Amino acid sequence: MLYDLNEKHKYYSLYKRIRQDVLSGKLKWGDKLPSKRALAQELSVSVITVQTAYEQLLAEGYVIAKERSGYFVAKVNVGPSAAEQALPEKKTDSKRSYKLDLVKGSAPANMFPFSVWAKLMRGVLSDCGEHLLERVPCDGDYELKSAICAYLYRARGIQTCPEYVIIGAGAEYLYGVIVQLLGRDNTFAVENPGYEKIASSYRLNGAKCTFVSVKNNGVDFNEVVNSNANVLHISPSHQFPTGAVTPAESRAELIAWAQAGRYIVEDDYDSEFRLSGKPLQCMQSLCPERVIYMNTFSKTLAPSMRMGYMVLPPKLYKKYMQIFGHSASVVPLFEQKTLAKFISEGYFERHINRLKNHYKGVRANLINLIEKRFSGVQIRDTGSGLHFTVTAKNAGSDEQIKKQAELVGVRIKCLSDYLQVPISGYSNTAVINYSGVTEEQLKNI
Amino acid sequence: MLYDLNEKHKYYSLYKRIRQDVLSGKLKWGDKLPSKRALAQELSVSVITVQTAYEQLLAEGYVIAKERSGYFVAKVNVGPSAAEQALPEKKTDSKRSYKLDLVKGSAPANMFPFSVWAKLMRGVLSDCGEHLLERVPCDGDYELKSAICAYLYRARGIQTCPEYVIIGAGAEYLYGVIVQLLGRDNTFAVENPGYEKIASSYRLNGAKCTFVSVKNNGVDFNEVVNSNANVLHISPSHQFPTGAVTPAESRAELIAWAQAGRYIVEDDYDSEFRLSGKPLQCMQSLCPERVIYMNTFSKTLAPSMRMGYMVLPPKLYKKYMQIFGHSASVVPLFEQKTLAKFISEGYFERHINRLKNHYKGVRANLINLIEKRFSGVQIRDTGSGLHFTVTAKNAGSDEQIKKQAELVGVRIKCLSDYLQVPISGYSNTAVINYSGVTEEQLKNI
Repeated sequence: MLYDLNEKHKYYSLYKRIRQDVLSGKLKWGDKLPSKRALAQELSVSVITVQTAYEQLLAEGYVIAKERSGYFVAKVNVGPSAAEQALPEKKTDSKRSYKLDLVKGSAPANMFPFSVWAKLMRGVLSDCGEHLLERVPCDGDYELKSAICAYLYRARGIQTCPEYVIIGAGAEYLYGVIVQLLGRDNTFAVENPGYEKIASSYRLNGAKCTFVSVKNNGVDFNEVVNSNANVLHISPSHQFPTGAVTPAESRAELIAWAQAGRYIVEDDYDSEFRLSGKPLQCMQSLCPERVIYMNTFSKTLAPSMRMGYMVLPPKLYKKYMQIFGHSASVVPLFEQKTLAKFISEGYFERHINRLKNHYKGVRANLINLIEKRFSGVQIRDTGSGLHFTVTAKNAGSDEQIKKQAELVGVRIKCLSDYLQVPISGYSNTAVINYSGVTEEQLKNI
Repeated sequence: MLYDLNEKHKYYSLYKRIRQDVLSGKLKWGDKLPSKRALAQELSVSVITVQTAYEQLLAEGYVIAKERSGYFVAKVNVGPSAAEQALPEKKTDSKRSYKLDLVKGSAPANMFPFSVWAKLMRGVLSDCGEHLLERVPCDGDYELKSAICAYLYRARGIQTCPEYVIIGAGAEYLYGVIVQLLGRDNTFAVENPGYEKIASSYRLNGAKCTFVSVKNNGVDFNEVVNSNANVLHISPSHQFPTGAVTPAESRAELIAWAQAGRYIVEDDYDSEFRLSGKPLQCMQSLCPERVIYMNTFSKTLAPSMRMGYMVLPPKLYKKYMQIFGHSASVVPLFEQKTLAKFISEGYFERHINRLKNHYKGVRANLINLIEKRFSGVQIRDTGSGLHFTVTAKNAGSDEQIKKQAELVGVRIKCLSDYLQVPISGYSNTAVINYSGVTEEQLKNI
């Protein structure tokens, strides 16, 4: 049993490794586990560590203890097709290891100030005590709503009141709420190319979707007009994957379109990372009555942080309270209080600044690297967010571009991979998403 | 400023009270707050308590500090219709104070072993550390799934494997998942009378609902057959509000109905509280391929605990993973780990036992009281759950029954109040929901 244990949480690592071996069948029903002392010696950890891991496995029924005999693997019922279904999350996570992944990725975990977060958690626990068991109103904890409201004013110039800020369990959850709020009989126009999850979430919630193409200046206005949609979901600050930024003139056109009884969902998913120049004004500020502003903390904090928010137009807020007023928030008060303190005590903006510095360096290095190695490519970087595009007119097919990158250990996708319905004019362009890239990885490329 | 502060969390109480006064306009822009020392003296708390509350208000922008002058109420932008919209949650909570509320209510808060819960939380924080930031698979943390799986076997005789247990953010959230899983083109048959939330949640998620009446033996089978529904949502162990328990014969009929390509959602919402006799076998055990079992922790732990779970038939589990496999769980890992330990270390079942003893006493006292005061009434108590019904044939209208109760400070609803579509045969029957009743309240009646 040679396990390489995570230094910081040895007991938990050991417990996880043994559990996985039981579930995968590597350790079989009746197998005896090494004695605590022997395993501790083998792994150079304390006997307490092994004992805690064993006790956890015992409590969960993975092993049984026989007096004066030791610990044995229990008969774990992993269902009819255990091999296939045990720990299904592993399947989706299984990916080739790349030297550089420019498709997925989130901020390097070691940049998150976990010790601060843990300190705030402990503080919330002792300050709020049993208050933590109180029912949270559907729209979220007022302290968090208020902290986000103040942050939105400082960072995005949004003037609203805490009431209109609705806390939800992440972006996909909020998409569902929007469908329930606006009604399923609406047609949602969604950007193409774009994130696959946006349209699929709306559809999963029963709404009809139509696609409008994104050009250099954002969505094609004529397509929006001709789409018969009455809700438009866009990211005007920085569209993924094209990187398009919607200029003021186009924004005004879109607002005028919305003012005829329609709505715009302004998805500001990576606006915190405007790396050069001033942040762009939100569309919400242009027309608070017709724009639903939304953002999450998965890009800025951790993808596991299932908290997002939206700012509703006053009328929709009223409707929201009518529909959901008798429900409780699905986000635990504990997380809401911790995040509220993280924001209002200044940690959030300090963290964003550290991330921005990190990403500035990564971006400069990446651009440098691309310019040095490839001639005749065109880099399109609008100074926003965590990705840019590289067009190589003579590179052959998109498949060839991706294969060439793969040969040197780099994973990329092309614009065409994000097309929800096929349209032409999006070939030969790689999307460079550097949100998960570390300086070390760049050194080894 | 005379505030009556919660003994245990004085700083938090004080902060909340002042914040509320700012938001309600009782404290106005520019008003000076009392000095820390003066307020501390006035309220008989320490200066530190006042200081912590003031700092919190300062951080959130409710007050501003002027050097050597003190604290002043800030200009808080509470929006265009502040008076109407500030703290909207208060509105829905505003209710007359009754001596005895037999409509709403959850287990008395002081019965929840919060110190144990807090201890487990601190343990999870130090044991798991940064692992808490890991993305949780859509179906939930395996440790919690496994703890629930083992509990279901011990408490309900359900034999399943942890994989098929899906963790979600409460019952309403899971209703939405079921609609997305089974499809919006299905018709859901829902019990009538019943909880208003069940049908409204299904409808909010775009499904069609039809109602089937509940008689003494549970849902009317002929109505189910004639309904053209392909999904049936029932609580066979103990229906709310009728208290009906579905006997074995009817269960077999329903299972046969489901086996023709249909599904049954078995909502086991209060099965933990079978107060006399043995627990009833689940329908899930009779036909795991056609029954979705579901339950939550809001009745057993706290209504704020937005965690529920369902056990999916293997085929549906596969479909679930296809649809949601790339999403993350909306329930934070921290709460999932804490609950997992609460269950696997035996606290959950000890807590349930304490609650059961408490409820046994409350129920006996209530029945005693009713039998003493009213003659000619018929109490129908199936020994299950947290409510029973009282039929008074000569009591006049249901409105009169409720008014008479209100005159002595008792809030009740009648069976007819829970009818989703009007049908006859449900009059003159009060529903006695004693889930929130304390022994003290009974003494004062």
